[in-house]
Amino acid sequence: MAGANSELVKYTSAADSEFLYYGHCKCINNVPATPDGKPTPGIITRTALRLADIPFLIVDAGSKIKPSIPYISFSGRPGDDIRNGVAVQLNDVKKLYDYGYTLGVQLAKTNDLVVVGESIAGGTTTALGVMMALGIDAKFKVSSSMPNNPHRLKNSVVSEAMDMAEIHYGDLKENPFRAISLFGDPMMPSVAGIASGVVTSGSKIMLAGGTQMCAVAAILTSLHQPLNNISIGTTRYIAEDCFSNVVDLVKSVSSEIPIFSCDLHLAESVKPGLQAFAKGYVKEGVGAGGISITSMLKSNGRINGSILLKAIEEEYEVVVEKVLLK
Amino acid sequence: MAGANSELVKYTSAADSEFLYYGHCKCINNVPATPDGKPTPGIITRTALRLADIPFLIVDAGSKIKPSIPYISFSGRPGDDIRNGVAVQLNDVKKLYDYGYTLGVQLAKTNDLVVVGESIAGGTTTALGVMMALGIDAKFKVSSSMPNNPHRLKNSVVSEAMDMAEIHYGDLKENPFRAISLFGDPMMPSVAGIASGVVTSGSKIMLAGGTQMCAVAAILTSLHQPLNNISIGTTRYIAEDCFSNVVDLVKSVSSEIPIFSCDLHLAESVKPGLQAFAKGYVKEGVGAGGISITSMLKSNGRINGSILLKAIEEEYEVVVEKVLLK
Repeated sequence: MAGANSELVKYTSAADSEFLYYGHCKCINNVPATPDGKPTPGIITRTALRLADIPFLIVDAGSKIKPSIPYISFSGRPGDDIRNGVAVQLNDVKKLYDYGYTLGVQLAKTNDLVVVGESIAGGTTTALGVMMALGIDAKFKVSSSMPNNPHRLKNSVVSEAMDMAEIHYGDLKENPFRAISLFGDPMMPSVAGIASGVVTSGSKIMLAGGTQMCAVAAILTSLHQPLNNISIGTTRYIAEDCFSNVVDLVKSVSSEIPIFSCDLHLAESVKPGLQAFAKGYVKEGVGAGGISITSMLKSNGRINGSILLKAIEEEYEVVVEKVLLK
Repeated sequence: MAGANSELVKYTSAADSEFLYYGHCKCINNVPATPDGKPTPGIITRTALRLADIPFLIVDAGSKIKPSIPYISFSGRPGDDIRNGVAVQLNDVKKLYDYGYTLGVQLAKTNDLVVVGESIAGGTTTALGVMMALGIDAKFKVSSSMPNNPHRLKNSVVSEAMDMAEIHYGDLKENPFRAISLFGDPMMPSVAGIASGVVTSGSKIMLAGGTQMCAVAAILTSLHQPLNNISIGTTRYIAEDCFSNVVDLVKSVSSEIPIFSCDLHLAESVKPGLQAFAKGYVKEGVGAGGISITSMLKSNGRINGSILLKAIEEEYEVVVEKVLLK
């Protein structure tokens, strides 16, 4: 998760995806958590997937640590620090987009709605970088997994990378692959490709997340993809966050893309670790918001915020409290 | 493909799976072919998939060469020669089965029928070995991609491996994982796991192939899996082959498992390379028979053997004749 120490952070994606399948991790002993101990939003995602019996697959777009589960490999390499010149090789950007497209076409054959979440460390900084290059003014609008959103740090990292590449705000509006290559990460072309494949095949896609999915939406806009079957799904903790402005960001990207948010009633939770999500910690990730919305849709409303909250608390008891008590 | 030289043979699985997606290969310049130039049955598979708009995913259970496509990784290692002591580490057998099961459960959520084919070199020999260890007398019954089925060679390889492991006919009837570990290959536990996950979740599975799918069926029987939602689907070139007896093999495995075969009218083809399939060459593979049957089922019979033949010939013109004329 963004902000954790660099040795542990490389395990986050693998640990999150193992957690979705097993309810525990194999590559680390505990569940993924922020440096201050807030558990992964994967708890919400796993609960919603199970409650509504939603099938899911994991895509590895380039994680350093491979998860101990069956996963769809895009044969990607880990992204580099955007201050090192090239974050993702341009050829890899194109390949990841093509592989995503290929997968999206297959998924659309049996699914009228495909929902894509992500788990990547430092993802809001690369999202900021790509959006700035595409001419979306995302400064002070991107979200954070911490209550004290380090906007100045993110802005300075992106400015340094843009200066080095001699790219100004909006310069790459018509070249989103180059924007990803310079300032992005392997998740972006992969998810953009999946989305393109799905909508081209006539199904709908929900990008499950906040800031990072705004970046993907911006990429799809720059690629002149049809936007009428694309939505963003997130939690109210992102949509109503005072320290970022994702709703405004989505509007800047396109007036055509709706953003849905769900209320998980976590402020009312008896579990401090879940209450924290409503107090500016974590807030979103691993597709938590979009999958929660999908669980409500798939169950025709039988599953609502209150039912989800109860199930999330039960999951929390099993995976966090029992582990801590061991 | 079985019998090709050992340098090229390791590319077969990757090339076949690339071919299914693109209609050409990336890891080799041509389409996969037997040493005597007969093209891959993947031509049939690709045609049937496209004609009936059937979604598909590729699983890599342990190929040496990784395909340039999105594929589901089971993190498997290549199988070893069964005369070297251990073909697949026992831990890997269990892992591949578990991963297959996990995937099968997901696939069953959106598919009432899942069809699994394979592409693995030397697969009929490992099938023979596993069936012998499980007490299925498969000697002189397994099929071959060549008209001159080298039964004696296969029997002698299996005998050597069984002697070395001090295992006699039927000794491992109650221990199929050990049978796979000693005499099998990574495809077997992977496909058996997928099948178990699918049928446990209430959907049906068709094992698309001949001899090798008999071995998988034998493994499922030994694992005491319910067999009522399992079938085998193949081509008539396997079902009616004089130099093997797959129908009899399936009966020996279980009277509960039906075997379906389809007539692709390849003997009537104007293309010599396709006629060859009806003359004892290739005959089956890459799920060709089972996927052809599925295309007929999915289209409610709109697609029949004659329509498939015409489409297969068109595919053959594009992928074989045009490539040769280049």
